[in-house]
This record gives sequence, structure tokens and C-alpha cells, in this order.
Amino acid sequence: MADTGWPGCSKSLKGVILDMCGVLYESGEGDGVAIPGSIEAVKKLKASDLQLRFCTNETQATREKFVAKLQRLGFDISVSEVFSPAPAAVAVLKERALRPHLLVYDGLLPEFDSVDKTNPNCVVIGDAAEQFSYQNLNEAFSVLIGLENPMLFSLGQGRYYKETDGLKLDVGVYMKALEYACDLKAEVVGKPSPTFFQSVLNDMGLQPHESLMIGDDLVNDVGGAQHCGMKGVQVRTGKYRPSDERHSTVMADGTVDNLAQAVDMILNQRN
Amino acid sequence: MADTGWPGCSKSLKGVILDMCGVLYESGEGDGVAIPGSIEAVKKLKASDLQLRFCTNETQATREKFVAKLQRLGFDISVSEVFSPAPAAVAVLKERALRPHLLVYDGLLPEFDSVDKTNPNCVVIGDAAEQFSYQNLNEAFSVLIGLENPMLFSLGQGRYYKETDGLKLDVGVYMKALEYACDLKAEVVGKPSPTFFQSVLNDMGLQPHESLMIGDDLVNDVGGAQHCGMKGVQVRTGKYRPSDERHSTVMADGTVDNLAQAVDMILNQRN
Repeated sequence: MADTGWPGCSKSLKGVILDMCGVLYESGEGDGVAIPGSIEAVKKLKASDLQLRFCTNETQATREKFVAKLQRLGFDISVSEVFSPAPAAVAVLKERALRPHLLVYDGLLPEFDSVDKTNPNCVVIGDAAEQFSYQNLNEAFSVLIGLENPMLFSLGQGRYYKETDGLKLDVGVYMKALEYACDLKAEVVGKPSPTFFQSVLNDMGLQPHESLMIGDDLVNDVGGAQHCGMKGVQVRTGKYRPSDERHSTVMADGTVDNLAQAVDMILNQRN
Repeated sequence: MADTGWPGCSKSLKGVILDMCGVLYESGEGDGVAIPGSIEAVKKLKASDLQLRFCTNETQATREKFVAKLQRLGFDISVSEVFSPAPAAVAVLKERALRPHLLVYDGLLPEFDSVDKTNPNCVVIGDAAEQFSYQNLNEAFSVLIGLENPMLFSLGQGRYYKETDGLKLDVGVYMKALEYACDLKAEVVGKPSPTFFQSVLNDMGLQPHESLMIGDDLVNDVGGAQHCGMKGVQVRTGKYRPSDERHSTVMADGTVDNLAQAVDMILNQRN
């Protein structure tokens, strides 16, 4: 049973969007570990008549490598079902003829192979983790402060995420750092950007009220989806903290222990 | 001649407070370099009947080592004339019986020798420069997020400073990063904190209207001093940028090319 209600949309529901890290698996050394029940839960959704997409702010690997990891963990997922910030950013850069200085994890660089990076006129940051050194942040700062019209794109705006050995600072923290250093406002690509959620809805051909987002991040998953007119459910795995249930501005449409419980609620209400 | 006016306080003036980095010298490799005319300007002030204090947000070395560097550069300065954030922070920590986790430059650590640092219940950050690694920032974050009532003290809130090889990110950038990560507001110790300026005024036994602050940082030196009722003059050295003269919220009482020019203006008006 969900402790704090459940969105009353299950009968009209046509599509489900799942966050990945903290919902399907916990990241950490190697591939991380699948969250108990989540492999089976994805199978059940795929066997239903609901559409299913995956929406992640993962920016430490290309979509191909990231999906391969999930497949190794046992998940039935293909690249075309996964939406992530880097391909969305590449589209924006090309559309506006921008040449980025990249401060991203090495593993993500291949996503930007097709983008001109000479003589940069903007900065793109992702979750660079250990590569968020003082020197690398200073380099990104130097590019921005030298531009007449500095533009910063952030692949997500998360505060932190959970790895098997503890909480880790996420890209949003460094976005705020550069915003303050350069007195500018970054453009977020990825969750909770409405453009990003809308691209997933477009791909499913669904309206917001026909779709449900399930995530562990109250602000970026649940709040972001709600901002687009979707329902948002939070799972008590991943970066979930009990204080999320008393948050001052975002209230989930439902809170459940894990993805397995969420999927059972959805499918039971449809029978 | 000053291009943009000069505060009309010179006749009632009894004390001058000088920022150090960017006013007396430019930092960089080794000891950095004295700004032309500034050694002589300090001498002239000392030979006048004006009181003189130095007020810095320097947090990469103890006051003793920092003053020794300025002396090597040729400045007539003693430790008792210099106000810096670390001793002010130590006083606050002892007063409130707080045990800090320190994220500061190694050279600053001796300032905190007398403070109990076991089982920390707050975090103090200074300009840690290269020591602002992802790992060290994560450690500070972990301490804060594990506290029921997380408290962050920041030794200054500067955005960046100038070294001989370019602009460098300052402590304020990392303060904003941790503020966002932990959803809290840091307490700033050092400029532009009114408590910090007031302690300098107290030491001189002067009222704000009898004192003038000269610095290269429009917000933290000039704005901070003005907020305390003092006049604030900006020099066009150090981190000064032309856009400072069109700033949306802070306007200097005077803007001059360098300290030498400022001191000549002060002393000429008194004769």
C-alpha cells in the first residue's frame, strides 16, 4: 500500500516514464546494483498495454554505454526508449550554431563528436564528478568571463545523487557555482526542463494527463513532471529522504516504497 | 585626477582602511608583485596623522606569513594592523562552542590550531584553491547533510580574484555550491560582513563617517564599507573591471586609477 495516496489517473493512463538511477538501480562501483523488484517491474510494464519510456539526467556515459550497463544488470531496455540530456544539448547547440567548451565526464565526450568545439562561445557542463577539479572549473569560468554574451548550459540541475558508498554532489551544484562567478543564469537541458519532458511525451504521442512520471528526485522528476501537467510519483529508494514528504513547494501525487510497488498499484487499478 | 568624483569626506577623515590583494599587490607565482606606487602610498599614509588599517579576505596563509610576504615586497606593515577572516572565525567558533570541519588551504590550518575539530558540527570554507577538489567538496557536503542543523561559515564571499596568470575562482563560488547542495544560507565571516568592518572601526576608535575604505572589489570592499556608513573608493587595479562603473546596485564614492592616486587625493585635500 502507498502511505500517502495514489494519483487518480490510473484508468486514463496510457504511458509511464521512469527515471533510471535510484529507481531501477543504485549507482556505485562497477555497474551498481539493481533495486530489488525493479527488473520484474519493467517486464510487467512492457507486457501491459502502457507505453514506456526512460528519462534520465545521466551524463557520465553515452546513451549506448549507459543502456548496455542496464542490460547487463538484467533490464529489458533499448537505446531508442531512453531520453538523456546530452543528445538534447547537441540538438540545441546545432540549432543555434553554438560551439561549446565542454566540462563533462570523459565518458560522455563521444556524444559531442559531431559538434564544432573550436573557439568556444558557450560552456556545457555535465556531471563531471572527479573532473570537477579547481583547474577545470577555472577553465570553464575563464571561457565564460571572456565572452561578451556568456551562455552556460547545464545537463540537469541535480543537487546530489546516491552511490553505494554515499551521497555525491551533482552537476547543479557546479552550475550554481558558475552562475554566481559569472553573474548569469544557466539554461538547464534535461529534467526538470519542460522542453525535455515534452520531447518524451511527443515521442509517445500522448498528452500530459495521460502520462505518469516515477522518480526518486522530488524536485526534478516529480516537480518537473507536474509542471508539465503530468502526475508525479516518488519512490522511497535512491536519493529519497524522509524530509521530501514535508517539502515546502513540491508534493508528490503519490509516494511508494519502490518501483515494484508503484507498478503493482498501476496495474491493479487497471484490472 | 579621479574620473568619477571623490568622496567629500577628506577634511573630516580620521582613518583609512586598505584592502590588500589588488590594491597593494597583484598575487601570482611566489610573492606576487607590488602595484607601482603602492609601497610609497602606504609610507605617505603612515607619515600622515590618519589612522591606517588593512582589511583582507586573504585565507591562503596565516596572518603572520601573509604579512611577512608583504614585508618582503617592501611594505611597512605589521600583523596587528591587519584584519583577516580566519581569526574572526575562530572567535565565532569558540563563542558558540562549534567544532568545524575545515575546507581551507593547508597554509591557513595553523590559524585553527586552538579549535576543537573532533566530531564536527559545522563546516568552515576558505579560499582552498586547488584543494577545492570534487572529493574535498563532497566531504564538506557529507558533514553538512548529516547534521540536523547544518551550519556553513564562509571566509569571504568573493567571486574571483586576479593572479598574474589570470582570474581565479574565489571562495564565494564554492559557498554558493554548498548552499545549493544543502539548501542552506552560509554565514559570511570577513568582508562584506558588517561585523567584520565594525571590528576594524572599533580598533581605530572611529565612527564610520570618519573612515574611508579603498579596495578593488566593488561589492565586498566598496559596497560592504558603504553598508556600514563608511565611504568607499574603488581602484582600477586588481580585479577591477570597467563594467564595475555601471554596476546595477553599488556605486563607488570615487574611482581612481590606483592607490597612489587615491592617497594623493586624500592628502592634497587635507593640506
